[in-house]
Amino acid sequence: MSLRIIATGGTFDKHYNELTGILGFSDSHLPQVIARTRMTIPVELEVLPLLDSLDMKDEDRQRVLASCRAAAEKAVVIVHGTDTMKETAEVLGTAGLPQAIVLTGAMIPYEIANSDALFNLGFATGVAQVLPAGVYVAMNGQVFAWNNVTKNRAAGVFQPL
Amino acid sequence: MSLRIIATGGTFDKHYNELTGILGFSDSHLPQVIARTRMTIPVELEVLPLLDSLDMKDEDRQRVLASCRAAAEKAVVIVHGTDTMKETAEVLGTAGLPQAIVLTGAMIPYEIANSDALFNLGFATGVAQVLPAGVYVAMNGQVFAWNNVTKNRAAGVFQPL
Amino acid sequence: MSLRIIATGGTFDKHYNELTGILGFSDSHLPQVIARTRMTIPVELEVLPLLDSLDMKDEDRQRVLASCRAAAEKAVVIVHGTDTMKETAEVLGTAGLPQAIVLTGAMIPYEIANSDALFNLGFATGVAQVLPAGVYVAMNGQVFAWNNVTKNRAAGVFQPL
Amino acid sequence: MSLRIIATGGTFDKHYNELTGILGFSDSHLPQVIARTRMTIPVELEVLPLLDSLDMKDEDRQRVLASCRAAAEKAVVIVHGTDTMKETAEVLGTAGLPQAIVLTGAMIPYEIANSDALFNLGFATGVAQVLPAGVYVAMNGQVFAWNNVTKNRAAGVFQPL
Repeated sequence: MSLRIIATGGTFDKHYNELTGILGFSDSHLPQVIARTRMTIPVELEVLPLLDSLDMKDEDRQRVLASCRAAAEKAVVIVHGTDTMKETAEVLGTAGLPQAIVLTGAMIPYEIANSDALFNLGFATGVAQVLPAGVYVAMNGQVFAWNNVTKNRAAGVFQPL
Repeated sequence: MSLRIIATGGTFDKHYNELTGILGFSDSHLPQVIARTRMTIPVELEVLPLLDSLDMKDEDRQRVLASCRAAAEKAVVIVHGTDTMKETAEVLGTAGLPQAIVLTGAMIPYEIANSDALFNLGFATGVAQVLPAGVYVAMNGQVFAWNNVTKNRAAGVFQPL
Repeated sequence: MSLRIIATGGTFDKHYNELTGILGFSDSHLPQVIARTRMTIPVELEVLPLLDSLDMKDEDRQRVLASCRAAAEKAVVIVHGTDTMKETAEVLGTAGLPQAIVLTGAMIPYEIANSDALFNLGFATGVAQVLPAGVYVAMNGQVFAWNNVTKNRAAGVFQPL
Repeated sequence: MSLRIIATGGTFDKHYNELTGILGFSDSHLPQVIARTRMTIPVELEVLPLLDSLDMKDEDRQRVLASCRAAAEKAVVIVHGTDTMKETAEVLGTAGLPQAIVLTGAMIPYEIANSDALFNLGFATGVAQVLPAGVYVAMNGQVFAWNNVTKNRAAGVFQPL
């Protein structure tokens, strides 16, 4: 089993800029995170432009789709912002690709205390290896089919429709 | 889907005692860890005596087995020391229980920098929900059947036989 | 020697709100931080309204001055935003109080990886106990008199005029 | 003002070896720690053999003394184990050197959650710049003269004789 991780930004990968005081993007944390996980399977990391998912346009989702289409791995984890994770999942889900593609993210950035990022990445990595081909959202320790998930923004959690 | 997490100690849960300078056990970190994961599925935590797995005796493994037997949940994650994880997996594997039981642990304690504990817990939680009934070891981003796994102590990783 | 710590907010005490994605203020981190320092001298914590120092008005600085005036301790540390630390230092400095009053803060919030907050608090706590009465800014491992300091915003450091 | 930091090991600098499970020594954390502090004064780091201070022999203390004697800086901070910090302070104190020499350390290693290491380093760095020539122990937010300090091992704190 080999794994592709596609970084697209989102809360998971936000970085605090100490000169501006802004939480934005710099280099992805994922190379360091992947080293920390001590994974022994082959892992390919692909870093796309890092975006707040509220800023994602159709062309950005098409870029994610193109990366999935081109991936040789049977298991793909996409690190994505939570606000439009569902929209990207729809673009991927309707494409009918032959892989298990799992979108995940974080409610608290990896570099901030008490972050759920590392747990979510582990969770998504696990289900991506075991689930049949399809597109899924994996958040809060729960797996959702791409067409049966929504983010409850008031509670900050994902739930079925 | 509901989940039972059984804490048995191991590197994952070790705690630095600042008076003695010893890495041993105090209260389990798992209540705090579970809160951090923001899981939305029902999670039952069962804390057994916390042990270094090198100190585990047969009766300790029987206690873990009894907990699994008594569990109502279909998905069970056992946090365990890595050194004898394989031995406990054998005790559980030969019992033929009707659940997906996944043993995991950590190479670096949860409370020490660069720990893999949170990733491993996420990984185990994911595969426990998706795998068929059986006993598995989930470490280093890889799932092993209970009867096809060994710890390579020199490299600090798990691998198939 | 006893110590008063006055919390006024600033980058040091910012908190990531996972529902809004905004770095703002919630409860001060200082009770937890002070416990972590294991200080054996008497420490009194006074939490004023937590503000980004760019939002501080004259009345806010007067409130800080009033707290210093009322303090029984000979050593006072003020946790403050860096952007207008100099302005508050001027208000306190011209008041000629009989204590060693030391303003400090952080370039990275306490709860974000690689934060300088804990170092700066230690540094300020040290110099506040040893310096003669007066008002000082203590940042980047350097002590400045209140009337000979400025923040170099491009470099993110404090320096003499 | 320039500063010399001398690393001698101790709890501050202990490192968890994930292959052996032992808390011992590897590379010093201090280069990374000093970068984190964002100090703007010139800082010279000197790394001596890293030792548990219970393992320090007379020759080890003489080596620390030789480093202090050779130091051009007026402010010297020594990162040291807490168990025999007092003994090394005596060796240095009776030598009558012309600098402010401040010994500090940690009750919890820098790399373990809730560590006091960064606070203590900041505290020692502050008092070393302000105190007159002499030898001091700076722990728990308190400064002690080298000949009026003892470690209360039951409570894990330093106190005057």
